[in-house]
Amino acid sequence: MATQRKGKQSFVPFIQPVITAWANVAGKKESEGPLGTTFDIKSNDSYFGQETWEQAEKHMQQLALQALCEKAGITQNELDLVFSGDLLNQCIGSSFSLRNTNIPHLGLYGACSTMAESLLLAAMTVGGGYFDKVAAMTSSHFASSERQYRFPLGYGGQRTPTAQWTVTGAGAALVSSNGKGPKITGCTVGTVTDLGIKDANNMGAAMAPSALATIKAHFEDFNTRPEDFDLIVTGDLGQVGKETLLNLAQLEGIGLGGKITDCGCLIFDNLKQDVHAGGSGCGCSAVTLCGELLNKLSKRKLNKILFCGTGALLSPTSTQQNLPIPGVCHAVCIEGC
Amino acid sequence: MATQRKGKQSFVPFIQPVITAWANVAGKKESEGPLGTTFDIKSNDSYFGQETWEQAEKHMQQLALQALCEKAGITQNELDLVFSGDLLNQCIGSSFSLRNTNIPHLGLYGACSTMAESLLLAAMTVGGGYFDKVAAMTSSHFASSERQYRFPLGYGGQRTPTAQWTVTGAGAALVSSNGKGPKITGCTVGTVTDLGIKDANNMGAAMAPSALATIKAHFEDFNTRPEDFDLIVTGDLGQVGKETLLNLAQLEGIGLGGKITDCGCLIFDNLKQDVHAGGSGCGCSAVTLCGELLNKLSKRKLNKILFCGTGALLSPTSTQQNLPIPGVCHAVCIEGC
Repeated sequence: MATQRKGKQSFVPFIQPVITAWANVAGKKESEGPLGTTFDIKSNDSYFGQETWEQAEKHMQQLALQALCEKAGITQNELDLVFSGDLLNQCIGSSFSLRNTNIPHLGLYGACSTMAESLLLAAMTVGGGYFDKVAAMTSSHFASSERQYRFPLGYGGQRTPTAQWTVTGAGAALVSSNGKGPKITGCTVGTVTDLGIKDANNMGAAMAPSALATIKAHFEDFNTRPEDFDLIVTGDLGQVGKETLLNLAQLEGIGLGGKITDCGCLIFDNLKQDVHAGGSGCGCSAVTLCGELLNKLSKRKLNKILFCGTGALLSPTSTQQNLPIPGVCHAVCIEGC
Repeated sequence: MATQRKGKQSFVPFIQPVITAWANVAGKKESEGPLGTTFDIKSNDSYFGQETWEQAEKHMQQLALQALCEKAGITQNELDLVFSGDLLNQCIGSSFSLRNTNIPHLGLYGACSTMAESLLLAAMTVGGGYFDKVAAMTSSHFASSERQYRFPLGYGGQRTPTAQWTVTGAGAALVSSNGKGPKITGCTVGTVTDLGIKDANNMGAAMAPSALATIKAHFEDFNTRPEDFDLIVTGDLGQVGKETLLNLAQLEGIGLGGKITDCGCLIFDNLKQDVHAGGSGCGCSAVTLCGELLNKLSKRKLNKILFCGTGALLSPTSTQQNLPIPGVCHAVCIEGC
């Protein structure tokens, strides 16, 4: 077996991983947005029938996994492994959703890059012949995030123009060596980049340098360029972060302009929905990938995308201690079937 | 390439992963304990020269990684990938330690099972030919854990008899396909087990069922039994959890008695150090593995161990919401060189 490594930070799976099914769950505001028709399960109840918002997040992951298995035509018992994580302290959305299911679980923390991180690890697992039905999953919830990272909702804190709106939603994708669907053809692991941004209400700017670093690494490792992709989809820089990324790229003479789109910009209608700089949260890129993007890839409306999950690796503690916000970005190249 | 899967939850790496180097960092209390001579870096300063305990944890990881590379005779730039995580909210110990190092990083959350989880994923990565110098790392800190999970230290809260003492320490292991050292010959991914334990001061009891579930799964998947190992090392159930595990095993007719030891029981001298039910925290199994255990495996004082990282997947939020504590355990079989 030859090395599967490509360049410095990237690899190609030995066995071809195929995304054979995907499912998503979304809240009310998300369902009213431009991607509303691409969600499998929608709810107007921010509690999703649970007692707390944290439990709602757990339940969204349960619903996403259930919908995923239904769409894949398998039972949950047939899942070999779930890679998942979320934004809640100690990732309780993920661990509680899998309690007593008997499904092997590896927990991740990549902040809002988690959908890309879980997909990359699922590709590695399937590509190495370790397990064959591997789910990649994540979630976020506006209300649980607000109270954990910022203020209690009842406080009615004013949001700054650069603030993003945490998406209430969960997404799950099934990666397998057998079956039909979009293919994962190359992955790039990100490094932790920190340019000193300290404003927890401007996470787009904090993440943009890491997005550029990973996109550049992917181009270099695979000897490819923006023109080779239909879309380079970051998730979730939002409007401010996307502009920052384009500016940073231009300074280095890289023309990303026509190819870049961002899950945080796609998910809400900024004119009608008053979300300031766009969407954020692990759930943002998860519901966009596990709906809009994979739908289009499976119908060949898109042929090749670079899905770049971006995460702001702050915590309320690091913010209180006046530390900057490190960013990370992992990239997964997905090709239509 | 044939499947690398074994049974339901386990796998064997295709390319043989070797643990070519290991390093650990420990605090004052740990250094005064029975494993004191096995630590590479010790400090009497609980801040490790930093401004906060959270930053101390970050710094311990930096020191561990530095010592690891020195012992391996490589520069940090030669590392292909670091799998790491910790107990701090949003895992800031891990992400901040790798800021601007340019080392690819995948963040994990497995609570105190993180050393086993990171080692398992490093074995998968090296075993699949993806990357070749992969570090597995984690840390914990008594003071940052106490104030995050329980009470501010200045409050002087009384500890219950079943409470464990979070280890101040970090451990790192280098996994590679080239070189000499103990070998990773099989891994078992755990499931999330919850038997309804709600006492956040009795995490041993909450984790014991998951330890048994994973040990049983490993035996079944590899058609092996307790007698085949020199040691089955859980980490970190502590005294109460270890007794619970032995009792649960006995109820199922599995005789683990002579083989089980626990990192939470090894690290402190319970008679002299007043730690109640023993040590805990990601750092507990990390410093024990990346010192005592790997030292003995490399000198053939141990020939084959099953290293079983156990994690209590609670958060302060889940405790406040009166939810039970799910447990998880991942197992890595390591053989002497």
